[in-house]
Amino acid sequence: MHLLDSSISKAEQIISLASQRGWMIATAESCTAGLIAATLTEVAGSSAVIDRGFVTYSNEAKMDMLTIPEDILVEHGAVSEPTAKAMARGALANSQASLSISVTGIAGPGGGSEDKPVGLVHFGLATEQDLINDIQIFKNHNRAQVRALTVDHALAMIIQRLQEI
Amino acid sequence: MHLLDSSISKAEQIISLASQRGWMIATAESCTAGLIAATLTEVAGSSAVIDRGFVTYSNEAKMDMLTIPEDILVEHGAVSEPTAKAMARGALANSQASLSISVTGIAGPGGGSEDKPVGLVHFGLATEQDLINDIQIFKNHNRAQVRALTVDHALAMIIQRLQEI
Repeated sequence: MHLLDSSISKAEQIISLASQRGWMIATAESCTAGLIAATLTEVAGSSAVIDRGFVTYSNEAKMDMLTIPEDILVEHGAVSEPTAKAMARGALANSQASLSISVTGIAGPGGGSEDKPVGLVHFGLATEQDLINDIQIFKNHNRAQVRALTVDHALAMIIQRLQEI
Repeated sequence: MHLLDSSISKAEQIISLASQRGWMIATAESCTAGLIAATLTEVAGSSAVIDRGFVTYSNEAKMDMLTIPEDILVEHGAVSEPTAKAMARGALANSQASLSISVTGIAGPGGGSEDKPVGLVHFGLATEQDLINDIQIFKNHNRAQVRALTVDHALAMIIQRLQEI
């Protein structure tokens, strides 16, 4: 499985920061399908920090597991800012975590369009206090690379938020 | 992320076999925490086959997401045959999949005991027709290796079951 060299050290930093703060983390992943949770738990001792992960690959999974209203998926699509935000909110509401991270994107090679090209990824990060979103377009990368870049960016967002606490 | 060389080709075989049969797959992962789902979805076109994944790292997650009775966790522990079976059953019941795979084990380096050593992994595989379980002890391997061996064994179990259909 392809990961950026920086991702494991980011995961170590997250487990350390979240442990110090007594925060638990939940993930809601579409295009990475578990790779963020798997990367975080590569770190020994992560069980004190990682509560659960929702791998919501199908739209039905997004609705069932993260209580995302069908309206949002129909109106904006699975790869959209509203869906990413609803995924993060849903992960927080349906877990015992204090922080959740969500990703939904188009890893390719198929599935891209002019509006939503391959490499487009929407991110969400929710805490009880706030809901952050971000968008990246990882151009000219293959499926494995888009997923690896997505994991690394999600981990960077978590670190930034934990450092603000 | 460490994976065995054989795992991606096994994932490709699973996506092909399940597509032909019109079966969807769900995962319920504890020690691998999303790595089985991430490996299966490394294959382009896997969205036709992979419905969802439950990353149930904490006991609360196992109870909430997979409706595992607390009695089973208290009596047998999270790493046990009854828990692995209940996880597979719970993943099938709480998804639209026709086949589910579950893993729960001790990846190490901590958490091992005489009865339940580091490297011990229980597997479950459920369909509407049957519920299979398996046990492996991956001795003398580090955390990343135990997880990679667990992914590969889980994928082999899925292939064997799909070939019987």
